[in-house]
Amino acid sequence: MMEKAFEHLEKIYQEMVEIRRDLHMNPELSFKEERTPAFIADYLNKLGIEVRTKVGGNGVVGLLRGGKPGKTIALRADFDALPIEDEKDVDYKSKVPGVMHACGHDIHTAALLGTAKALSSVKDQIPGNVVFIHQHAEELAPGGAVAMVEDGCLDGVDEVYGAHVEVNYPVGQVAVNDGYVQAASDAFDITINGKGGHAAEPHWCVDPLVIGSHLVVDLQHIVSRRIDPLQPALLTVGAFNSGDAHNVIPDKAYIKGTVRTYDKEVRVQMENELKLIAQKTAEKYRASIDVEYSKGFISLYNHPKETQYIKELAQEIVGEENVVRKPADMGGEDFAYYVDAIPGSFFWVGGGNPAIDAIYPHHHPKFDVDEKSMLITGKIFIAAVFKNQ
Amino acid sequence: MMEKAFEHLEKIYQEMVEIRRDLHMNPELSFKEERTPAFIADYLNKLGIEVRTKVGGNGVVGLLRGGKPGKTIALRADFDALPIEDEKDVDYKSKVPGVMHACGHDIHTAALLGTAKALSSVKDQIPGNVVFIHQHAEELAPGGAVAMVEDGCLDGVDEVYGAHVEVNYPVGQVAVNDGYVQAASDAFDITINGKGGHAAEPHWCVDPLVIGSHLVVDLQHIVSRRIDPLQPALLTVGAFNSGDAHNVIPDKAYIKGTVRTYDKEVRVQMENELKLIAQKTAEKYRASIDVEYSKGFISLYNHPKETQYIKELAQEIVGEENVVRKPADMGGEDFAYYVDAIPGSFFWVGGGNPAIDAIYPHHHPKFDVDEKSMLITGKIFIAAVFKNQ
Amino acid sequence: MMEKAFEHLEKIYQEMVEIRRDLHMNPELSFKEERTPAFIADYLNKLGIEVRTKVGGNGVVGLLRGGKPGKTIALRADFDALPIEDEKDVDYKSKVPGVMHACGHDIHTAALLGTAKALSSVKDQIPGNVVFIHQHAEELAPGGAVAMVEDGCLDGVDEVYGAHVEVNYPVGQVAVNDGYVQAASDAFDITINGKGGHAAEPHWCVDPLVIGSHLVVDLQHIVSRRIDPLQPALLTVGAFNSGDAHNVIPDKAYIKGTVRTYDKEVRVQMENELKLIAQKTAEKYRASIDVEYSKGFISLYNHPKETQYIKELAQEIVGEENVVRKPADMGGEDFAYYVDAIPGSFFWVGGGNPAIDAIYPHHHPKFDVDEKSMLITGKIFIAAVFKNQ
Amino acid sequence: MMEKAFEHLEKIYQEMVEIRRDLHMNPELSFKEERTPAFIADYLNKLGIEVRTKVGGNGVVGLLRGGKPGKTIALRADFDALPIEDEKDVDYKSKVPGVMHACGHDIHTAALLGTAKALSSVKDQIPGNVVFIHQHAEELAPGGAVAMVEDGCLDGVDEVYGAHVEVNYPVGQVAVNDGYVQAASDAFDITINGKGGHAAEPHWCVDPLVIGSHLVVDLQHIVSRRIDPLQPALLTVGAFNSGDAHNVIPDKAYIKGTVRTYDKEVRVQMENELKLIAQKTAEKYRASIDVEYSKGFISLYNHPKETQYIKELAQEIVGEENVVRKPADMGGEDFAYYVDAIPGSFFWVGGGNPAIDAIYPHHHPKFDVDEKSMLITGKIFIAAVFKNQ
Repeated sequence: MMEKAFEHLEKIYQEMVEIRRDLHMNPELSFKEERTPAFIADYLNKLGIEVRTKVGGNGVVGLLRGGKPGKTIALRADFDALPIEDEKDVDYKSKVPGVMHACGHDIHTAALLGTAKALSSVKDQIPGNVVFIHQHAEELAPGGAVAMVEDGCLDGVDEVYGAHVEVNYPVGQVAVNDGYVQAASDAFDITINGKGGHAAEPHWCVDPLVIGSHLVVDLQHIVSRRIDPLQPALLTVGAFNSGDAHNVIPDKAYIKGTVRTYDKEVRVQMENELKLIAQKTAEKYRASIDVEYSKGFISLYNHPKETQYIKELAQEIVGEENVVRKPADMGGEDFAYYVDAIPGSFFWVGGGNPAIDAIYPHHHPKFDVDEKSMLITGKIFIAAVFKNQ
Repeated sequence: MMEKAFEHLEKIYQEMVEIRRDLHMNPELSFKEERTPAFIADYLNKLGIEVRTKVGGNGVVGLLRGGKPGKTIALRADFDALPIEDEKDVDYKSKVPGVMHACGHDIHTAALLGTAKALSSVKDQIPGNVVFIHQHAEELAPGGAVAMVEDGCLDGVDEVYGAHVEVNYPVGQVAVNDGYVQAASDAFDITINGKGGHAAEPHWCVDPLVIGSHLVVDLQHIVSRRIDPLQPALLTVGAFNSGDAHNVIPDKAYIKGTVRTYDKEVRVQMENELKLIAQKTAEKYRASIDVEYSKGFISLYNHPKETQYIKELAQEIVGEENVVRKPADMGGEDFAYYVDAIPGSFFWVGGGNPAIDAIYPHHHPKFDVDEKSMLITGKIFIAAVFKNQ
Repeated sequence: MMEKAFEHLEKIYQEMVEIRRDLHMNPELSFKEERTPAFIADYLNKLGIEVRTKVGGNGVVGLLRGGKPGKTIALRADFDALPIEDEKDVDYKSKVPGVMHACGHDIHTAALLGTAKALSSVKDQIPGNVVFIHQHAEELAPGGAVAMVEDGCLDGVDEVYGAHVEVNYPVGQVAVNDGYVQAASDAFDITINGKGGHAAEPHWCVDPLVIGSHLVVDLQHIVSRRIDPLQPALLTVGAFNSGDAHNVIPDKAYIKGTVRTYDKEVRVQMENELKLIAQKTAEKYRASIDVEYSKGFISLYNHPKETQYIKELAQEIVGEENVVRKPADMGGEDFAYYVDAIPGSFFWVGGGNPAIDAIYPHHHPKFDVDEKSMLITGKIFIAAVFKNQ
Repeated sequence: MMEKAFEHLEKIYQEMVEIRRDLHMNPELSFKEERTPAFIADYLNKLGIEVRTKVGGNGVVGLLRGGKPGKTIALRADFDALPIEDEKDVDYKSKVPGVMHACGHDIHTAALLGTAKALSSVKDQIPGNVVFIHQHAEELAPGGAVAMVEDGCLDGVDEVYGAHVEVNYPVGQVAVNDGYVQAASDAFDITINGKGGHAAEPHWCVDPLVIGSHLVVDLQHIVSRRIDPLQPALLTVGAFNSGDAHNVIPDKAYIKGTVRTYDKEVRVQMENELKLIAQKTAEKYRASIDVEYSKGFISLYNHPKETQYIKELAQEIVGEENVVRKPADMGGEDFAYYVDAIPGSFFWVGGGNPAIDAIYPHHHPKFDVDEKSMLITGKIFIAAVFKNQ
């Protein structure tokens, strides 16, 4: 029966391409999605799938009840776009100025809708149930996932799977990895309140620019001395702005940056150390300081057993030689919240293809991928449903 | 005869006030002076003084030949204004939007013109000659003084004197000091060329923001370790700008600041150390760096003997108790170039007076001074000419 | 037949204990071993094993030819002791003042000699050959392993296994892990050559103490900014010594420390960055600098397949619940050179036992372990030989 | 009459030389002086001078009442030696191992005793009284001066004068300067209490060596940013010691150094800033810290009028061309306490003479000076007494 679903999927490939291109031309920003979830809900409804909308915001959740006993498997695709101007020269180019599907969420959505249609065609033979999680707002903290989980999208679900098209792997390949594969990503904003004045009278001032420089240097101490060297941890100051004249000591220095970690305790430790060092640096030089620390996504942990499961399914579908190990990186992905709640795995599906100019990195104005990747994603999803015993 | 010149000066006080207010209403920016030097040249011409215009740019130099043998004494007043909006509520308020005599150069000019008129009235009794140096562009590096000196304004001059009205002293007081009284003032502009990228991949980048922070911290080393602790020296970084996002390592960091010194060797040393530390900091962290170092005015050295001379003249004119010691400071004044060439002294004439709201600091939009200060300046100038033996 | 070897091993347990205690009472320092290798060679000789002495220095290699076809498996034990005073109160306490088997190498040796005796008893049934590597000098760089490998101890060997008794795990447990499990460990010695003088005249000096402090702070930059945050890397400065008086600027600063890494490229990068930062820091502040960088052991990489093999053997011997995952750490072990040359794995055998006061950490003057651990090590070694097909 | 005293002084020159050489052969360390004050007291007694011993410790004060009305003038000489081994090859070499008059206090004492004898010879003609302050312990904080002042040595005294022989000026010259001429000199001792451990586990430790390095770097901030750039101020860390092994994070870091200032408020500010920065640096990195701050001599301020007086007297005695301006320096001298209490001046008398090998700097094992300098000192002292109206 799985084979039959595969065949159905291939048959509707052209429809999937059309859906993808329609979404590509009509991208919507995170938390502002309207047309996209409406389209999804409508499509699933027509398939006879039970649909719940406005899940955790703009999310759409479909439930397909299989005809046989089995687990409930959730499949997730995100559907928001980015504030980037589309610079591609193709007929499905974005029609919304300054907004673009530059990360492939349109591909994810079309692949999952195709999967839903293919599975619906063999509904009676499906063991257990399938939950289709169409998630809004993956690109912007706090993300849609955490709210959808809170709103019950995983209720009764046994395992959850998700995929990301990845231009750095050629179409035809699948990449997997277990353990921590994406970092927790937090942001900080620091204001140092000094006391400005004439450049020639530093003794009447509290120089926030020099204090800020000390702070940036001293923050390096955290990763090099306070954190277990075997635990990945990163602190980058992305912006430092203070003053604009040669001969004036400014009043303020503004500093902002990001903290990335895998381990939960290390994450807490990074925040605590950053705040302590910032506070004491200010006190040391008689300034005051404001530190705002904003928590972003948690780190993404791929469960070993479920990852092994996906790996083996992928090996059957694309051949053993085309399944590679994805190195962990320090980027973020809010699929993390699903696998924090229940077992599951997130995998990457190659979409690179120089022949069609699918060579630009994610978030690039010319980003594009090979649409064939949708078939591979769909088949792995279908297999994950059928082999779920 | 000196007394007669004093009397003449007092008699034309109202005329000096009118000149001052006319200049105040028609301020001109540094290096853009036209009306002011034309007026000065015309006024001196009418007094029968030999006038040279376009000296070193927009400068005007007058020569009054005395009837008796003696030294040639030069007296200097600057006449440019500042790019500041006049916010005073007086009928002689500036008529030029965004330009204002906010440092008293109008006062200096009127006082020196009055002095010229008073001296002309007793011309035959004057020992030696008097040179009137009306200087443009004191407020903007490289200043007018250096060019006027190069253009010969001090040729044949034995001693040079200059005065600055000073709102921080009450009208009636005169402040003097010998040795270094104003600093040499240089500026620097540094660009650190790193290699930007994703905040989570510092190892692929060269982080100019952290390198810049190291640089600012390490520049403190110069004053604290490389310079004789008995030699005044100051290095202030006035601006540090790098990056604007939380999660991006920027490509560049821009740093600018000022260096202030008294001693000539210390000045050279500061420049050399700054350049060495900047260069090596960049090399250390695999960045490249551009350092632009712009020399401003040299430091102002008041010659002891000539300063003692002014002090004694001032004591006669305003009373011993009203002549105070002006503490040295690290600001700049291009009168420095005159006393670098020949002996002389620069002094300060009190102009503060709460009764007429003359309480705002120099360069303040409401800056004003008591015009009576012009009489004191003029009398000291006249005495400096008459007692020159 | 393996079972028979197991039985033999248990039968000679008391002999192994005696060997271990004899070695414990007669410890020898790294590269100075004489009595120990002589004893080992004699013991192996008596078993009819082919013995080669003076391998790569003080190493001893035995070859037992099995009666059946199969792979050649090498088993390794190290036998040097440490410069630590034995403070235990037992009758087998060290008889050599200031020298002690405080890391369990006596246990390793006795366990491997027992294994040799047990295997010899079933020699005809052994598939393939067994190589017994008794290694000197594991405690001191450059270690004995690298020289023994160069001297051919692995010639013809297919796989290599080694074990370390570990007091942090209770006797009865075995710990395994694949990939990088121990770090490459390098040392550095830095001398900053400044120019000393009177504390009140820093401008005549080059202050090596302040320069050294800058260097220590700036070395933190390497781990925090130059190295991939996903790659373990550590730089610790262990000693900083400069000056001894309040009012004298010293001539020199002496700095030393250690660098630990897993990845080979990261190791090279650490060395390069350290040298660059040291050199440029000195140039920046007009000092000269000497950097000596001494390479220690390479990192220990446990081959996945061979580790899985050991894991399964251990599960059979001590039960699945007693085989745990050993977290990687940043310590060093020169078994690394064997597995850098051929496949193999290094594992840890629990030796902790509060009942007999085996609770002190390795390198502690009261360090001791449960001798029963020798049986577990021996059985895993025997199993590794027998199941080698 | 002054001339007569001059003649008497020259007549007893040989006796002064003998006294000086006797003292030179029998040096005594600060606060341990016995023979020297006994000798001085005896000598003054024999001159009929009223003597008080044990003044503020080991000090001796003589009072000579003049026959005419006038001011009371105090003249001071210090008499302690240094813990330095005499390496000169002369017959008056120190007979006390490891102790030496390497700073000229023997010269000061002999000159003042000669002065006392010469003045005694014209006692009736002296206007006012003369107080001879023979001070112990100038070389070691807290010094003898502060205690002698407290013990009343200046009671009834109008002015105080002191001299220091100075090998850097040739014999025949006298150096003077007014205002601040020697710095206040304080010492600090800092212990950073971290938590040591294995070099590879910084996250379990608090690394005092890195914290100490941050502290040394950050202390540079005080002089460069917190203190008026026109106020001399110096902070030198003379010693930093932490750890001795490559692979161990130490428990403690020990830091010591000196602070030198002129202005009293700046002195307080330096201490406060140092303590604040030290405390906050420790808190910042989770260490604790002990700071001991020991106040040394206050800064020496030469009163302008009294300095002008000495300058004119010296010009008469050695000729105008031989009186030079002594640049201020940051060394210390406890004569400061006398001129903190009453008006006075401290001057320097040249003692350098290559012909007799008087070329080594003060505190050098071969230090020596030209004894003729004693005559110049004595004459200036005598003149200061006679011209005191």
